[in-house]
Formats: sequence, structure tokens, C-alpha cells
Amino acid sequence: MITVEDYEQAAKSLAKALVIREKYARLAYHRFPRTTAQYLGHWRADAAPLEEGLPDFHPPPLPQEDPYCLDDAPRNLGFLVRMQGGILYVYDNTKMLECQEPHSLPYPDLETYTVDMSHILALITHGPTKTYCHRRLNFLESKFSLHEMLNEMAEFKELKSNPHRDFYNVRKVDTHIHAAACMNQKHLLRFIKHTYQTEPDRTVAEKWGRKITLRQVFDSLHMDPYDLTVDSLDVHAGRQTFHRFDKFNSKYNPVGASELRDLYLKTENYLGGEYFARMVKEVAQELEESKYQYSEPRLSIYGCSPEEWSNLARWFIQHKVYSPNMRWIIQVPRIYDIFRSKKLLPSFGKMLENIFLPLFEATINPQDHRELHLFLRYVTGFDSVDDESKHSDHMFSDKSPSPDVWTSEQNPPYSYYLYYMYANIMVLNNLRRERGLSTFLFRPHCGESGSITHLVSAFLTADNISHGLLLKKSPVLQYLYYLAQIPIAMSPLSNNSLFLEYSKNPLREFLHKGLHVSLSTDDPMQFHYTKEALMEEYAIAAQVWKLSTCDLCEIARNSVLQSGLSHQEKQKFLGQNYYKEGPEGNDIRKTNVAQIRMAFRYETLCNELSFLSDAMKSEEITALTK
Amino acid sequence: MITVEDYEQAAKSLAKALVIREKYARLAYHRFPRTTAQYLGHWRADAAPLEEGLPDFHPPPLPQEDPYCLDDAPRNLGFLVRMQGGILYVYDNTKMLECQEPHSLPYPDLETYTVDMSHILALITHGPTKTYCHRRLNFLESKFSLHEMLNEMAEFKELKSNPHRDFYNVRKVDTHIHAAACMNQKHLLRFIKHTYQTEPDRTVAEKWGRKITLRQVFDSLHMDPYDLTVDSLDVHAGRQTFHRFDKFNSKYNPVGASELRDLYLKTENYLGGEYFARMVKEVAQELEESKYQYSEPRLSIYGCSPEEWSNLARWFIQHKVYSPNMRWIIQVPRIYDIFRSKKLLPSFGKMLENIFLPLFEATINPQDHRELHLFLRYVTGFDSVDDESKHSDHMFSDKSPSPDVWTSEQNPPYSYYLYYMYANIMVLNNLRRERGLSTFLFRPHCGESGSITHLVSAFLTADNISHGLLLKKSPVLQYLYYLAQIPIAMSPLSNNSLFLEYSKNPLREFLHKGLHVSLSTDDPMQFHYTKEALMEEYAIAAQVWKLSTCDLCEIARNSVLQSGLSHQEKQKFLGQNYYKEGPEGNDIRKTNVAQIRMAFRYETLCNELSFLSDAMKSEEITALTK
Repeated sequence: MITVEDYEQAAKSLAKALVIREKYARLAYHRFPRTTAQYLGHWRADAAPLEEGLPDFHPPPLPQEDPYCLDDAPRNLGFLVRMQGGILYVYDNTKMLECQEPHSLPYPDLETYTVDMSHILALITHGPTKTYCHRRLNFLESKFSLHEMLNEMAEFKELKSNPHRDFYNVRKVDTHIHAAACMNQKHLLRFIKHTYQTEPDRTVAEKWGRKITLRQVFDSLHMDPYDLTVDSLDVHAGRQTFHRFDKFNSKYNPVGASELRDLYLKTENYLGGEYFARMVKEVAQELEESKYQYSEPRLSIYGCSPEEWSNLARWFIQHKVYSPNMRWIIQVPRIYDIFRSKKLLPSFGKMLENIFLPLFEATINPQDHRELHLFLRYVTGFDSVDDESKHSDHMFSDKSPSPDVWTSEQNPPYSYYLYYMYANIMVLNNLRRERGLSTFLFRPHCGESGSITHLVSAFLTADNISHGLLLKKSPVLQYLYYLAQIPIAMSPLSNNSLFLEYSKNPLREFLHKGLHVSLSTDDPMQFHYTKEALMEEYAIAAQVWKLSTCDLCEIARNSVLQSGLSHQEKQKFLGQNYYKEGPEGNDIRKTNVAQIRMAFRYETLCNELSFLSDAMKSEEITALTK
Repeated sequence: MITVEDYEQAAKSLAKALVIREKYARLAYHRFPRTTAQYLGHWRADAAPLEEGLPDFHPPPLPQEDPYCLDDAPRNLGFLVRMQGGILYVYDNTKMLECQEPHSLPYPDLETYTVDMSHILALITHGPTKTYCHRRLNFLESKFSLHEMLNEMAEFKELKSNPHRDFYNVRKVDTHIHAAACMNQKHLLRFIKHTYQTEPDRTVAEKWGRKITLRQVFDSLHMDPYDLTVDSLDVHAGRQTFHRFDKFNSKYNPVGASELRDLYLKTENYLGGEYFARMVKEVAQELEESKYQYSEPRLSIYGCSPEEWSNLARWFIQHKVYSPNMRWIIQVPRIYDIFRSKKLLPSFGKMLENIFLPLFEATINPQDHRELHLFLRYVTGFDSVDDESKHSDHMFSDKSPSPDVWTSEQNPPYSYYLYYMYANIMVLNNLRRERGLSTFLFRPHCGESGSITHLVSAFLTADNISHGLLLKKSPVLQYLYYLAQIPIAMSPLSNNSLFLEYSKNPLREFLHKGLHVSLSTDDPMQFHYTKEALMEEYAIAAQVWKLSTCDLCEIARNSVLQSGLSHQEKQKFLGQNYYKEGPEGNDIRKTNVAQIRMAFRYETLCNELSFLSDAMKSEEITALTK
């Protein structure tokens, strides 16, 4: 039997978990909802204005400005950077380095982290807390059903009388998409045929010192591009990829040939990634024409060499890849084991250094890293990617070997990757904030498959996540993600091909309960059929789940909030006060979300949070009367 | 218990039903599969070549030809036409008319029809036959599963090695779409705004002798088109239309205003239907650009006045609505009761006369009806439309009042409408065939809702049907539709908004069993979100049901076969021998359907048919040995 005391205890533990997340969020300039902070008693009227807590993204250059201008790099601070235990420390000068006194920035503390982590881990298996969360979630779902029955027509009436704005002209951001698969299969096919028609004799590769023309590439594959079809291209995920992430990954090779992947879908190759850049720019062109669609494509940094960043920045600037409708995310594949076994890396620490040191250097001395400094204006976050279902034997704790001594061929576990990514991003963000530079969000893939403990790691370290399917299986985590309003970029069509049938996808249920979900495409090349992948995603969700216009516009609004678009753009797309929570943050003339819906969401969240603050107060009262 | 004799009896009854359908099909120049005819013993080697049994559609004009040329009308035959008992009879001259000797054409015989009808009606409720069909259908489904497990990879390999052809460049026909809803909601919205911007002061209507400008129309509705959105337009079907066909019909009124429907979506109004024509042409333009998509929009003839046909033909020619990617179908709404109650019609017979007499006159004397004669080149069939779930008290039999004495305000039942439509089309087709003119197919809406007996009427009278959902509920009819390979144009997104949730739609199951299904949009304005409604339909089916490329291309091939495209076009789109059944009729280079799939379908059908012919033979043997 579950007692009132049990429930009070559950509420207190949940509040503690939220306080923990809040701490990690503040440290890294991640977002935490003020409403939740208020109920946790962590907000005072004299606190800094709301805007200041927002992450810092560069506004896009003005129409008259050159987006590739390398002139305005700030001066060199002359700081030194050294990696210790997988984390980069900043020193003001050699003297400080010698006496090991780093520059005053918050540095993470692994011991505290593992204690915090174990609190959440204990919570998600604690019986009474599970029951408590399960009941609250059921309540949230029923409450939305009731809201729908009562207010559906009133919501639609609000939207009908809202001039000029409808689902088609509200802004939508594709919050999770991989650049190497951002074009659809037909587009890639057309592009390959076009290059072959227009420049068959161009040298496109070099092998063992021999220059190879495009014609020779296709000749060696025994293939005439005229005959090529989307079937022979074979990049689309079919029934064969379900629960086979390995097969899925090989779908990135057109016609199963890694030569073509290198030539068409990579930023580093003989052509300096020209073909890939041209295709990405065609996709950007379509977004700009659609006017209301934005996208946040992921580009890879592998951490195999310290040159990767400057190469990527050069690719970006040389091919003029900037688009006002795109903002970039850097994805880091969790494939240390592959590099280690090929002897490309001595330790996991080196990988982290390759990923982060160039960023610290470009932040400290932008004048010597002008291209990277410029490119980082358009990068707004980091993603961590790979097959989550791969099991790891290692259990991350404060006894785990630190990255500089992680030299085995074994891959570190998910939580280890996430901690060290977060820790370095956090230090970097604080350093950049100090200089008045933009900060980054950590937005890992999480909860697509594998262990639900991944969602615990992300609860502490991530601003927002992609997928989150496994929240379905943990009521405690699902409820915590709700209370902390952690944004989740969901891609039901991708899941449908890989991990979960469309009809079983929890998106609709999450949306109804009030979780902060958006819709994203993941990989249009592999999953979508039409020219407009994001619209296909919305259309199918709308059709299969019979979503209302208000539902669709709420998802679109979430996607803009969740994105790395700048404060200025969000004000333009969502309204002046978009950063305020509840109905006052909504401008229906821009979002087409009914105020009735916004009020319902806000009151519902406040009601849930009030249980937590009541439980905390009763503890204080108990303490006083004792 | 069911005995072997029961089964034999069932097989024989099914064979008889097929023989009946074959008879009706031949009379009307409808299609009946030769394979089925062969197994029924109705085909001899010395029969006419296969091509001659095909329906006759005009090939599209050559690029150098004028599609609106009125010159080549054949001479006047001078025949006379009179309606008797709801059917038009043709007489060679006044003398023949006086002695009541009609021109030698097959005329339908109501008594035979009702006997045939009652055979099928008895069959669908006959226990052993139901069991037999149920088992055969289960077998067909399991057999396909097995085929899929065994041959899926082989099919895909065939497609991968098929040069130049993939799902994107196989021809697809939207086999069921209403012209008044053929644009999507965003398109209609854009068009309305555009007209208001460019010609606000144009006179667009006349009311009580007063001319009304476009601005005045919107003023009287208290509406500024700039503020108009898809929400306020409110033509999209939402959750409110499920099982509410009445609400759905009102969605044809933009902003709920019938004035706007008249102005923008009608062929007859003050502007001569100019706005509607312009929108239809924009849709046609998009199809032509897509190159591989065709559509068969429905235009209405109500039968309220004999002028409707000439007005429609004039609209078509005056606004130059012809497109090589469109072929037209005439829909006749089953709303005699509404016209009768408004005293617009004296009897049901008059309605039939208004619908068919102009066609007979234009066929007999094209020179005096040049416009209609020309328009009919591009018309390939008739549809019968309305809410099937409306119940009728009347039971059609040979005792029913004939159309000329059907003067009550009661609407005739579905089967009555179908019989008289079929009968007149049949006579008309025979007359036109005699003159070497094109014939028409009867392609009614059937089995969307209401009584399953509708499917019995269509089994006799229709070349193919739209919807067919209710075949789900009658194993006997489903099996008969399979054996006779009656094409079914299915619109799962339409059903999802009106009658049946997407996941419960039987399309996938029908496809697997081998029924001749195609995909169609019905009403893009009400149901679809993206610019490419037909692709949206295919994409959602592919995603939700995980259809393979071979499945999709099989559906696309079916859609071309089912359509009113001419023999020449079908040869171009499907292959020289498209009209042959089985793998020899398939040209994979054009259809991208694997020969393995074609062979499976053909062998499976032959196997099912062989049971029927065995049963018939055993009857002969029994007869001989007795």
C-alpha cells in the first residue's frame, strides 16, 4: 500500500532531481523553465531579468552585411589551455599554469556529478515514486482529453478569427536533421546524374597518386549514371532496416559504394567537399523559398585529428554554405573504439582534445583562427550520435579511468561520453560568455534505443534531446522531463523505419500530456518520399493521429523555442515576449496557437509543480514543529 | 459441417456470378479479364484479338493538333431518340418510331437484371459460399505473406537492376478526384487572395439585377481577404467530419459562404466559371510539370436542365481547360429528391433524360453539337456520387415504378440509380461504337458506407468503383471482386476523415490478396496538407503500411490500367502488351514492377480460377455419368 508519506517523499525526491538539473543547466547556460524554478523556491523577484538567462546565439547578419566577413575577430587574450583528466583548463598565463591555478571559471567535479547521478538513478526505480509519477502522467493525459472535449471548438474559433496566420505560415524548425542526409533520395539522384552530364572528365579523386575522373569513378563501379534509379541508389530505409542500425548506417553509401559517399556526402575530399556543399545549398535554397521553414543540420567532427575544425570552417566559407534558414549543429559520433583499433588515436582523452581544444583556441585567440571564429557564429550546439542499442560493459563512476588513461580498445559507455562532452562545453560556454561570444547547447541523441539510463545522463547534461522514445518506459523520467519542460525533437518516420512502428510512437501521447515535443525529419534521404520532408512529417502526424491545427501549431512553436535561432529571430517569429512562460509568452498573431491552449498548459504545469512545493513546505513545517 | 458437395456448389455459384458479370461487361464495353473468361470456358482460340475487347478512348491530340478544333464532326445520322421507362431508345426514322421498332442495339431487360441481381444477393448470404470465400481469402493473404518472405529480396534485386525506372518516374493516375476540390486548401486561399488583389472592382455576380464587384462580395461577408487563412477558409475536413458526411459537404463552402463556392468552384456563374477554370488549369500545369502524374477529375452534371451539357462543354472550350495530364469523368449526384422537392423536376425520368438525351443527340448529330462532341473526346466515364449511408425505404425490383412515373419526392435507392445509369450508358456506348466514337466507363462511388448490397449492384453494372471499403464485410463479394479483378480506386486519407481510421483501412490487405487496387486522393482541398496530394497519399501508405517499392509500383501500374487513358498512352506508359494478363503484359522497364510479383499474381489467380472450372467440369461429368 502506498501512504501519504510515500507520496510526500516522492514529491520531495522529484523536487530534488529538478534542483539538480537546474544547477547543471545554469552552469552551462542551458535553459531551465522559470516557472519550475519559482515553485522550487529558487527564484526571487529581484533576480536578473528573464532575457539574461537565455542562451546566447548570434543573430544572423543583416542583408547588407557579408556573412563571410573575417574582420571583426576580437583580440588575443593570451590564455593557455591544458587538458587534465579529459577536461580543458584555461590559465591566464604560464605562471598560473605552473602553479596550477586555472582562470576563474566553473569547472565540473566528477564526484558531485556521480552523486547527483546516483540520486536520479535511485529515483527511477523507487516504487512509490514510480507509482506517483505514473498516476500524475495518467492524470495529465485524462485532463488533456477533457480539455479537448470541452475546448476544441473554442480553440478552433480562436484560430479562425486570427487574421493572416495559419499552419502554413507559422515558422517551423527541423530540429534534428543530419546534413549528409538532408536532401531526399530523388534530389541526390538528380544531383549525381547532373554532375555526370556536365563534368564527366573532371578529376574528382586521387588514388595511389593517380588522378581519377568522374567517368572513371562510375566506370570502376560498372555503372552508367543515366540508368541509376532510387532503387539502385539504395539509400532509402526499408523494412530491412527495422532494428538493424548497422544496415541503416550502410544506407549512407549510394549504390553501396563508399566512393560515392566520399565524393558526394563528405566535406573533406579531393574536391574540398564541393559537391556536398552544392547539394546542401540547394536544400537551403528550397527552405528560403518556402520562407517559413528552418533547419538545424548536423555536421560531423570526429575528434580523429585537430585539423578537422579548420577544414570544416574552410569548407563552410569557401563554398559559401551560409543560409539564413539554417543554423548548424556539430555531431560527434561515439566511435572512439573504431579509431583506437585502427591506431588513429592513443586515448579517449586525445579524442576529446581534438574536439574541444581548437574551440578554446579560437575563443581565446580569434585573430589567429578567423575562419573557425566566423564559422562558430553559425554553430549553435553539439550533438552526440550513434547506435544507442550497442551495449557497453563498463559502468561509469568516479572510479572509472579518466579519459587520458582510457587507452583500451573498448568504447566508453554513453554516460561517459555525455559527461565529458557536457563538461567541456560548460567550461567553453563560460569562457565564451566572459568574452561576449555565443554559447553552445548540448543536444544529444538520447532514448532512441538502448538503456533508459541514457535519459538520466541527458537529464543532467543536455539542454534538449533528440528522440526520447524510451521515456515511454520510465514514468519517473517522463514526469521529470515534463516538469523540467526538456525539449524533445521527435522523428516518428525515422523511428518507424528503425525502432518503433508509427502507430506505437509516443509523440501524440507526449504532446497531450504537455511534454515539450517538436517534429523533425532526422534523415530525409533515408525516410521521406516527397520534396518537402518536414511537411511530410507534419502531414503524416496530422493524418494518422488526427492532430488539430492548434496541435500542429503548438508543435511548430515548440520547434522554434527549442532551436538555436537567435533571440531576435524568436521575437520576430513567436512574438516580443516569447521567452515568458504561459499565455503571456504567446502571440497568437505569430504562432497561431490558441490562448486557451496556452492557459491550459500553464495552469496544468503550475498545478503539478504546486504538489512539489507543498511537499517541500510540509517538510519545513515538520522541521519547525520538531 | 461443410461437405465437399457444399464447396462444389459454392464454386459453381461463384462461377455463375462471374458469368453474369461478364455478360453485363461485354454489353457495355466494360472490361472483364480474359484469364477469368478462359477458366469459365467462355473463351475460344479463334475469338477476336484481345485489343478489340478494350474500351475505346480517344488518344490525346498530337502536339501539332489543336485540342479545341471543332471541324471534324461526323455527319448527322438523322436518328430519333425517345425515352421509355427511363431508357433512351434510338429509332432510324419516324416510321420506325411509329411502329416502335428501335435501331438494332442491345437494350437492357429489367426482368433479367432483377433475376441476375437476386442470384448474387442470395449468394452473399449463403453459408457454405461465405465459408468457402472466407477460406480462400485467408489463403490468399497467407500465400502473399509467404511470397513476401521468400521473394522480397529477389523482387528488390530485380528492381535495382532495372535501369532508369523507379517509383518516382513510373506513371501514376489519380483515379478518383473531384474537380471542385482538386486544388489544396492553400492553393485555393492563394487564388482567392490573388483575385482580390488584382481585380477587386471586377463585376463577378449579379443579384436582383444589381451588379456586384469582388470587393462588394467580400464586404458583404465582412471579410478582408488579406486576413483570410486556411483556418478561416475552413474547407479542410477535421475530426468534426468523421461519420458526418453532411458536415463534410458543407466544407465545400469557403468560409462557410455559398457565394464563394459559386464564384470560385462552379462552372456556371456570372463569370462563366472563369475562376474555377483558372484554378483547374493551375493544377493541370503542376501535373504536366511533374510529368509522371495524371488525374481524372470529376465534373458535375445534375440532370436538372438539358442545358447543362452544352454549358459545361462551352466552359471547357472557352477557358481552354484541356490538359494532356487530365482525363474527365462526369459525376451525377444522387439528389433527385432535392430537385423534386424544389419542383425543378417532374419525375426521375426527366432527370435521366436531361443527363443522357444530350449525349445521344451529340452522338447522332455531332455537327449540330460540335462543342459537346469535342468535349466528349476528353470524357471517359461516369461516376455516381453522394452519401451512401443515407437509407432508402424503397427496395428496387421489377415491380418498382419506372422512372417516368417516379414522381414522388422520395429519392430512388442506390441500386435504382445504378441500373438506370448503366442501362443508358450501355445503349449509348453501343451507338457510339457503331459510329466509331469513344465509349464511356461507368465508375460509381461504391462501398464507402451504407449497405453492402451497393457492391452487388456495382458488381453487375460498373467497370470499376471508388472506395470499396465495405468489401471488408462481405467475403463473398470480396472474393468475387478479386476473381473478376474489378479495379478499386481507394482513398484512405479521405476515409480517415470520414468513415474509417487509417490503420483500419483494408487497402493493404486487399493489395496483398491481389485485388486490383489503386490509390487516389478524392478531395485534396479537404484532406491533404502538401502541394503534391497524390504523392502524399502514396507516401503515407508507404510509411504506415511499410509498403515496398514493388508494392507501390504495382499500385501505380494498377492506376494506369484502371484509368481512362487511351490504348496508345497505356502502351507508352506500361509497355506494348499491357493489355495481356500475367507477366507477359508487364514491361518492367516502364512499370518497375518485378516479374516475380507479376508471375505470383498470375499463378495465384489461375489457381483460384481452376477450382471454379474443376467444379464446373465435375458437374458435366456428373451429368454424363448419370
